[in-house]
Amino acid sequence: MNIEVCYSPQSYPLFHNPDSIVVVIDILRATSAITTAFYNGVAKMIPVATVEEAKTFKDNGFLVAAERDGEIIPGFDLGNSPFGYMNDKVKGKTIAITTTNGTQAIEAAKHSSKVIIGSFLNMDLITEYLKKQQKDVLFLCAGWKNKFNLEDTLFAGAVADSLIYKYGFNSACDSTIAAMELYKLAKFDLYGFLAHSSHRNRLAKLDLERDIRYCLTPNQCPVIPVMEGKFLVKA
Amino acid sequence: MNIEVCYSPQSYPLFHNPDSIVVVIDILRATSAITTAFYNGVAKMIPVATVEEAKTFKDNGFLVAAERDGEIIPGFDLGNSPFGYMNDKVKGKTIAITTTNGTQAIEAAKHSSKVIIGSFLNMDLITEYLKKQQKDVLFLCAGWKNKFNLEDTLFAGAVADSLIYKYGFNSACDSTIAAMELYKLAKFDLYGFLAHSSHRNRLAKLDLERDIRYCLTPNQCPVIPVMEGKFLVKA
Repeated sequence: MNIEVCYSPQSYPLFHNPDSIVVVIDILRATSAITTAFYNGVAKMIPVATVEEAKTFKDNGFLVAAERDGEIIPGFDLGNSPFGYMNDKVKGKTIAITTTNGTQAIEAAKHSSKVIIGSFLNMDLITEYLKKQQKDVLFLCAGWKNKFNLEDTLFAGAVADSLIYKYGFNSACDSTIAAMELYKLAKFDLYGFLAHSSHRNRLAKLDLERDIRYCLTPNQCPVIPVMEGKFLVKA
Repeated sequence: MNIEVCYSPQSYPLFHNPDSIVVVIDILRATSAITTAFYNGVAKMIPVATVEEAKTFKDNGFLVAAERDGEIIPGFDLGNSPFGYMNDKVKGKTIAITTTNGTQAIEAAKHSSKVIIGSFLNMDLITEYLKKQQKDVLFLCAGWKNKFNLEDTLFAGAVADSLIYKYGFNSACDSTIAAMELYKLAKFDLYGFLAHSSHRNRLAKLDLERDIRYCLTPNQCPVIPVMEGKFLVKA
């Protein structure tokens, strides 16, 4: 079972492998929010790439999450703060969602046979799931507008490290080596390691320190969101 | 003065900045070979993206270097082994060159105002040059067929670290942070750190350990190749 790490949705075509399980990662904050949503009883989510598509869902009576550059787009119900999904009004609902990076990564991987949603919040469960599937794995980092970001890379490195050193997976991919080395440096203080990272600073300006601390705390939401057709559902 | 690191020629358009100096990096081995060539008296080089263009130069009587997947393409004079450029037959000559990754990176950056060639072989001189120019810097890693690679990233991290911590440059770019962290891990034993890297293994199969050791040894060739129009010349 081979592991690769792709640092940008733009590069996904270079890594496409019909047999891979694709783990989409957008730690700050889309995949953390999606994981939290399912843990809090959301029934289905519909990731869409554009605000226009999101509007169509809104016009048809859906709850709709829409975020660009860290903020909720006016007129929509939710953004990508995980805390928005911790209440009863989302329970049992189907929510359409579009975000700056995360839903673009899901869109990039849409022709893959299996797409799951990874975050520190469901890290150990993701690791166990991948171990059981015994298939090739591609970690697809959402990044920031197609550029590399640290926090997505650290998560990829964390899970890759377990799969390779505990469960016999392998990798011939330099981006996997780099992700694992960076995770080894960061793992005892993810928050501190990311102090100078671009996205942490971007969010700090928006007063989202509470979101950041939550998104970097492992294993608070042991659920695995998985794509089924156009929907995300609980695996 | 701002620093960014771009891990793949494919991503170059996301980083394009007309005021930046672009440092093209293909440690194993194109930019190491080019640096060596100028240090050994080559007058000019003409980087070309395709083998077809290289053939045209060959047909017109030029010395031509052409490499794909680590090997000299049959019928051409040179590949991208630096040792091919350490002899009198290249002195004073103009050499056309096409390689798997390095010349693609040069091609990607061709609309930049300034493109220079970086390698460990001219590392300190590159650092001094950038310090003197007082401009934004983009490190453009050639990678491997548009995927991330470690050795190019380590070089970017090495120079970025000096520029930021000694000479007052700054960076708000996660790929710069990652490159510097990886360099800090690797700097006392670049060869050992790259033991499991994809390209070192690719070249080891071709019996190129001597090339690898040479390309990772800093400051053996204090010259800076720079693009002027369609030519590389000594700065």
